[in-house]
Amino acid sequence: MVGAPIEFYFDFSSPYGYLAAHRIDEVGAEFARDVLWRPILLGAVFKATGQSPLVSQPLRGPYHLHDLRRTARRLKLPFQLPRDFPMATIAAARAFYALDAGSPKDARRLALALFDAAFQRSINIGATETVLDIASEIGIDRAAIEAGIKDNAVKLRLKAETDGAIARDIFGSPFFVADGEMFWGNDRIPDLRDWLKTGGW
Amino acid sequence: MVGAPIEFYFDFSSPYGYLAAHRIDEVGAEFARDVLWRPILLGAVFKATGQSPLVSQPLRGPYHLHDLRRTARRLKLPFQLPRDFPMATIAAARAFYALDAGSPKDARRLALALFDAAFQRSINIGATETVLDIASEIGIDRAAIEAGIKDNAVKLRLKAETDGAIARDIFGSPFFVADGEMFWGNDRIPDLRDWLKTGGW
Repeated sequence: MVGAPIEFYFDFSSPYGYLAAHRIDEVGAEFARDVLWRPILLGAVFKATGQSPLVSQPLRGPYHLHDLRRTARRLKLPFQLPRDFPMATIAAARAFYALDAGSPKDARRLALALFDAAFQRSINIGATETVLDIASEIGIDRAAIEAGIKDNAVKLRLKAETDGAIARDIFGSPFFVADGEMFWGNDRIPDLRDWLKTGGW
Repeated sequence: MVGAPIEFYFDFSSPYGYLAAHRIDEVGAEFARDVLWRPILLGAVFKATGQSPLVSQPLRGPYHLHDLRRTARRLKLPFQLPRDFPMATIAAARAFYALDAGSPKDARRLALALFDAAFQRSINIGATETVLDIASEIGIDRAAIEAGIKDNAVKLRLKAETDGAIARDIFGSPFFVADGEMFWGNDRIPDLRDWLKTGGW
């Protein structure tokens, strides 16, 4: 990999994050950049900014639900909202970081499996047991993740990533950072690509 | 013109509305659609939805100001925020509708002149006198606009357009409606184009 990595911040309860998760690695490959996946807890960010989850907002919520469905069709990705929404994502994010230290590749596989469980199979991935079940389904060692979720280093890592995101003024999901330039939203992936292609505007 | 018109909703204090105003007629021309320009009062919409102006929001504000500057550079449009922001836009919107009944073309010319005054020359276009000055600059009859702004039919038209926008769940600026499909944001113009081109997804 030649250039600096692309950072990909997301929350596991973010439907546009799900769409972006299926697209961002292609962008990395196209421009010979690593992509660093960085789940954060958007609830903590919303507390800092006074926002609320998109889909539960008046007027904006129905528009975005419609937009998610049509955008998913356009990207040829299955899509449905999880049964309960928004969901707690602390177990999912900790499971990710439990794997990330030893095998970023497995962490990413788990992240996609969690996103797909939530937004293709409509599963509430909030419970630790559910996260462990999904890890098992893709052949990741259940006991190791279970221990990792309780590991203090993992808890602190998630807290550090979330605090770090807030400190960088990251206020939503998905959020991309490339060469210090920030792009918010799945719909800004074309802008991110154009920025990487042209060297910026 | 063959297809149904594209509706273009905006508020004169919307910086992304300014960017879109310089782009949307090209989209109409490309697909042989009229574009109906529809200024509304976003303040009334925000009261209904509990939102606040973008640029004054914590974290989101600085991001969007940066994004506006880089997006304007990309589109090769001058850009700066008006001296006082946000601005009252009732006089500007009434002036638009005062012209729109007789000459939609002049109404559109005035709209672009008002947007450019605000976002290229940093002028607060809130005062009626300022709106009249800008109309004069582009050769539109000052006295006619002045009378129009006070005309009850014009006032009711602006109210009807704003109420109509809220009734259609339009909650921001710019907002586009084509063949019943809604797109929010200057950054969704490529989506609008793709929808018109492909017949939808």
